[in-house]
Amino acid sequence: MSNPYQYAKANQERFLDEYQELLRIRTISTQPQHAKDVARAAEWLKAMMLRIGMDRAEVILMPAGRCPLVLGEWDGAGEGAPTILIYCHYDVQPAEVADGWDTEPFEPTLKDGRLYCRGAVDSKLHVMSNLKAVESWLASDVKPNVNIKMVLEGEEESGSENINAFIAAHPERLAADIAMISDGAILAPDQPSLTYGLRGVTAFELHVSAPVSDLHSGHWGGSVHNPIQALCEILAQLHDENGAVAVPGFYDDVAEVTAQDRALLEEVEPYLQAEWDAVVSAPALWGERDYILPERLGARPTLEINGIHGGYTGAGMKTVLPARAFAKITCRLVPRQDPARVLDCIVEHIKSITPKTVQVDFQFGGMGAEAVLLDVEGLAMQSAAEAYAYAWGVEPVFERAGGSVPITFECMKVAKEVVIMSYGLKSGRAHGPNENIYLQNFYNGIQATIKFIDLVGQGRP
Amino acid sequence: MSNPYQYAKANQERFLDEYQELLRIRTISTQPQHAKDVARAAEWLKAMMLRIGMDRAEVILMPAGRCPLVLGEWDGAGEGAPTILIYCHYDVQPAEVADGWDTEPFEPTLKDGRLYCRGAVDSKLHVMSNLKAVESWLASDVKPNVNIKMVLEGEEESGSENINAFIAAHPERLAADIAMISDGAILAPDQPSLTYGLRGVTAFELHVSAPVSDLHSGHWGGSVHNPIQALCEILAQLHDENGAVAVPGFYDDVAEVTAQDRALLEEVEPYLQAEWDAVVSAPALWGERDYILPERLGARPTLEINGIHGGYTGAGMKTVLPARAFAKITCRLVPRQDPARVLDCIVEHIKSITPKTVQVDFQFGGMGAEAVLLDVEGLAMQSAAEAYAYAWGVEPVFERAGGSVPITFECMKVAKEVVIMSYGLKSGRAHGPNENIYLQNFYNGIQATIKFIDLVGQGRP
Repeated sequence: MSNPYQYAKANQERFLDEYQELLRIRTISTQPQHAKDVARAAEWLKAMMLRIGMDRAEVILMPAGRCPLVLGEWDGAGEGAPTILIYCHYDVQPAEVADGWDTEPFEPTLKDGRLYCRGAVDSKLHVMSNLKAVESWLASDVKPNVNIKMVLEGEEESGSENINAFIAAHPERLAADIAMISDGAILAPDQPSLTYGLRGVTAFELHVSAPVSDLHSGHWGGSVHNPIQALCEILAQLHDENGAVAVPGFYDDVAEVTAQDRALLEEVEPYLQAEWDAVVSAPALWGERDYILPERLGARPTLEINGIHGGYTGAGMKTVLPARAFAKITCRLVPRQDPARVLDCIVEHIKSITPKTVQVDFQFGGMGAEAVLLDVEGLAMQSAAEAYAYAWGVEPVFERAGGSVPITFECMKVAKEVVIMSYGLKSGRAHGPNENIYLQNFYNGIQATIKFIDLVGQGRP
Repeated sequence: MSNPYQYAKANQERFLDEYQELLRIRTISTQPQHAKDVARAAEWLKAMMLRIGMDRAEVILMPAGRCPLVLGEWDGAGEGAPTILIYCHYDVQPAEVADGWDTEPFEPTLKDGRLYCRGAVDSKLHVMSNLKAVESWLASDVKPNVNIKMVLEGEEESGSENINAFIAAHPERLAADIAMISDGAILAPDQPSLTYGLRGVTAFELHVSAPVSDLHSGHWGGSVHNPIQALCEILAQLHDENGAVAVPGFYDDVAEVTAQDRALLEEVEPYLQAEWDAVVSAPALWGERDYILPERLGARPTLEINGIHGGYTGAGMKTVLPARAFAKITCRLVPRQDPARVLDCIVEHIKSITPKTVQVDFQFGGMGAEAVLLDVEGLAMQSAAEAYAYAWGVEPVFERAGGSVPITFECMKVAKEVVIMSYGLKSGRAHGPNENIYLQNFYNGIQATIKFIDLVGQGRP
């Protein structure tokens, strides 16, 4: 074959077969009974890496013995050439027909141009798009001008407990000029998008207590500050009437939205608004008034109550005045916010507004991740943009994602530049029943990765 | 035997044996597997009624076939004499050693002057005190000047679903001049108390929803009004900074605390404060500033959040932005407040403060009971006061209870006067592990009921 683009197109049918073969393996990392499926997939991926011509491939067991990493390397471009690290994960969320699937969740089913299967979009799509792009390069007459590392994680869906430690212990194994994180979704089938910012996160629990034990609300109601009420009173003071977080110091270090951000994000707004209408569909939009939707979702920090519980919540009535109530809270953070400092501000504020009739306690899960802002002008991002334009025929838009992709932060430690390339769709029901992709996105993704490798190897655009 | 007081004292040992025999029957009305125990106790009580000389006794099956009423009558005082209706319940709450009992929960255990057993205070104490008082009258040379009806309920602990309908369908069966409800607790072993007011109750659930389904809080946080937050914001607006309910109209019909109330309740205050310190033990007292503790607990209405739930409340973190959250709320009501009108005020207020970013829904359990205020100056209450003074050697104080005793309201439909006579102690751990009584209270209770029958028969004080 003369070039990788042609090779990929000529082999689409086989690529789809192999993709489906991987989809059938139940790589559910959260369920110990599937540990051997995960291990089997790891061996399958290692064999695939060797078969497509990578120089080395290894299944690296993690400390718990389950859900290994698969690491492959091809260094045929030589010592002077740049190195691309491609990250994907091959484990998936659980899935049962009873969850609402119209088909067998682990049997790939093609229908109306879509492929339905658990893992179809999250994230075996990315595993296979990239493996097949590398294969297309290594099988063609021209070879890439970049060395390639691929790391396939096996426990992304169960908390990525071990990969960070592995990277920290062996930074040289993953060291690269450019790390390409391949996971996630683009805005629409015909509108690719590139994420240049990710929010960080920090978490805590707030516990409010008053009486020493649960009381009869008839006997004691009116004489004791109900912990549920006190908790609500505290939580109600954490936002102002404009939807902003009302914690002194919370916004102190926030990197303001720039004119460039506004210009980029205004392009995304109609897509996000359409998605909001379809997915959220709340009675009305809410949030910080001075910011457009993509900014509220990606460029502004939040304080979100993820859970609350107190007293009796079963059927019927129980006239209890509970001893305690609690809420689970996370904050999404933006660049320059330090998770620990944000928590300090919140704790200080809550203590200052807590009435003397109740006691508050905090629990910290130790979880904290800083926000990430990637360089839109760099070689990696510009190459990715051109790769999308080539594969989709449409220029991508740039967005800032509301969630966190913790591996991004880790990759920034071992690579000079990081880019996130997603081939799934937000409407692909990742984690839900009837997970699916537009099959064309699989083929587009292969072309995009081929082009990305091409452009990085040429040191342009 | 010459008189009932002496008879009761002479038979204390046997009375205790019989009380313990009843305690051993597991009359757990909430657990269907104990239906036959409840039925056995009903037959035991019917036989006891006939043995002690009542004219008639009947086990009356309830519609569900479980947990019958036991109804006994003695009309030896003749047609012109007044009739006393004595109400007690013989069913109990569940109990397991694993709940924290130091002894077998259904094996009566005497220790340091206390008798430990499930039902010891709630309410076989009252069943047996009254049966043995009636026996003492019927076995003595002098006979009571009152006709006596006793109704023993078998499903008070499981919701009293059927007794109201029975009373409504057969008002003549329970018709009386004075209904004596024998249940509950006095203030201290050496301080009897009479409850002259009971709060009413009404209940509802408030549901707040915004997005159509649970969302990823990273992806959508900042653009949608979190239903937990909105619920907290609404609930935080239901009280003002002085601990009063901030719902327009809520206090409109409230019967104000009178000078007589204040004088009576000031006597109770030290006992209640001591109990608050021991049982509630919150960081500080809370509630309406202008009212003393016994008023807050008995004479003022409340709005209490009994339960709240939304989002993820398990271990670890789940970054969910939930579709909905809800709270379970009850109001304790005081005389002249209409449960339906109070609910209307609350619903109207909540709707008026609900932002357009969320939707609220209400669920009503159909539960509503008006408050009760009993006549302190009437024959029943004054006879009860003198009966306590005779049996305990101490004048009782008058209190208003925070809880509801729904049967009171029903009894007011069939009796001219209602009085509540309690022989248990608030520290007797009703519903909890190691439920117990001061054994002396059992003997005092028998004497008090004998005296009460005596005084009502004499038409004095």
